[in-house]
Amino acid sequence: MKQFAIIGLSHFGSRVLEELLQYEDVEVLIIDRDQRVIEEFKDVVAAAYIADVIKQELIEKLVPTTIDAAIVDLGDKTEASILVTNYLKKRGIKRIIAKAETEQHGEILSIVGATDVVYPNREAAKRITLPLISSALSSFFPISEGLVIAEVRLPDTFAGKTVIEADLRKKHGINILAVRRHGAAQFDFISPAYQFGSGDTVLVVGREADIATIPAPSDGIVQPPPNVGSEPPSAAGPSADTGKRSIFGRLAQVLGSPNRRSLRKRIR
Amino acid sequence: MKQFAIIGLSHFGSRVLEELLQYEDVEVLIIDRDQRVIEEFKDVVAAAYIADVIKQELIEKLVPTTIDAAIVDLGDKTEASILVTNYLKKRGIKRIIAKAETEQHGEILSIVGATDVVYPNREAAKRITLPLISSALSSFFPISEGLVIAEVRLPDTFAGKTVIEADLRKKHGINILAVRRHGAAQFDFISPAYQFGSGDTVLVVGREADIATIPAPSDGIVQPPPNVGSEPPSAAGPSADTGKRSIFGRLAQVLGSPNRRSLRKRIR
Repeated sequence: MKQFAIIGLSHFGSRVLEELLQYEDVEVLIIDRDQRVIEEFKDVVAAAYIADVIKQELIEKLVPTTIDAAIVDLGDKTEASILVTNYLKKRGIKRIIAKAETEQHGEILSIVGATDVVYPNREAAKRITLPLISSALSSFFPISEGLVIAEVRLPDTFAGKTVIEADLRKKHGINILAVRRHGAAQFDFISPAYQFGSGDTVLVVGREADIATIPAPSDGIVQPPPNVGSEPPSAAGPSADTGKRSIFGRLAQVLGSPNRRSLRKRIR
Repeated sequence: MKQFAIIGLSHFGSRVLEELLQYEDVEVLIIDRDQRVIEEFKDVVAAAYIADVIKQELIEKLVPTTIDAAIVDLGDKTEASILVTNYLKKRGIKRIIAKAETEQHGEILSIVGATDVVYPNREAAKRITLPLISSALSSFFPISEGLVIAEVRLPDTFAGKTVIEADLRKKHGINILAVRRHGAAQFDFISPAYQFGSGDTVLVVGREADIATIPAPSDGIVQPPPNVGSEPPSAAGPSADTGKRSIFGRLAQVLGSPNRRSLRKRIR
């Protein structure tokens, strides 16, 4: 039997509750300030309280020290989540999982006692971005310590080669985990003797930079020619920008955007 | 050069913008109703508009048909996100990524035109839940088509065995991708001749049920004895619940929880 407390049932807390309830030997205690939230879930949990958890006495009264973990998700109430995490830490809860949106919020949560900080939106954003940039990638999972898992569509130059002949491990520093044949729904584990077909997708593990070295499939991806219709994006000189670039700018000119500067700064 | 439009910069949309801005040849157009949001980001994007995107004419005016993808994140405004997704589809945008919280919302987004539906909170909840339930797992990544990647701490019975001798592929149906030595920060790729040490963590790929068959490390995990101090949880008869179970119940009795029923229902 495992026991968990979910303090705050915003989007993340509610989804964690749903996931935990898939398991048999699990008991969950929920606390939220919002009566509607508690009413929604009270019939499926072991205990449910409507309470404003900002008060330390309430955490001490309601949360047993023996629980396996507490999950904190007070939505956008950043300060409250920091206070509650600290109360749970002082109460001696051994595992405290807290949700954060920003790096700064996450850092403070760690300092005051969170053992795990989860950034759902940042993680999801990371996962979709590389596939948007690189047309060969269809899916992308960052793993701890610099490793990533990616689904990569192989260019047709691989068709007819075996896994050994393609030698992605040596040539690109990556390992193939599984292959999905063109048009198939499932990934299958393969032997080194497997012969790639046209349009195969591979599930690979490696460093992000290494995965990016797999050549992209050429079909359907039209690369616009460099230096066509571009304007210098910065004082550094002419760029390889394409004709596409001017579309946003022209629109902004017509419509009066608050800003149409070129994109050379980076936000942190 | 790739061009993207982010319609709505709630938590997910903002994180996607931050990720996209890491790349050089990317240009982003942002639209949000909230002036503060637009002010915050206007200096780092190619174009920024304060606009209520619920109006179809605005989408037609502001979003070029040539963009590579549009990202829709109107926060909790479910109906608005459905309308906007549909406008983008009718405008002919080839890739539309929309954020959803619930299954129902996601389904509708797909029907009206989203090519990708992202559930940040559900995905993060899935990722943390299995490690909370299974003490051998420290991290867990669901991959498409039923495959999962997991970090699993090996029990000490593996120490001294080589990868070939342990034969996790045959005995448990899973593939080892990399190993992190006890105390090391980095995962390393290994050869089949690698000899496991005490406390090694392996990164494996396989089906969820297969990964759960790896025996858990025994150290530090105390399993409470079955049938101690338990009360029958349902009419189905006595359970294997442990003494732990009664804690929430007793507390609820003292404090007057709105509910203290045993956890046997499942929410959907």
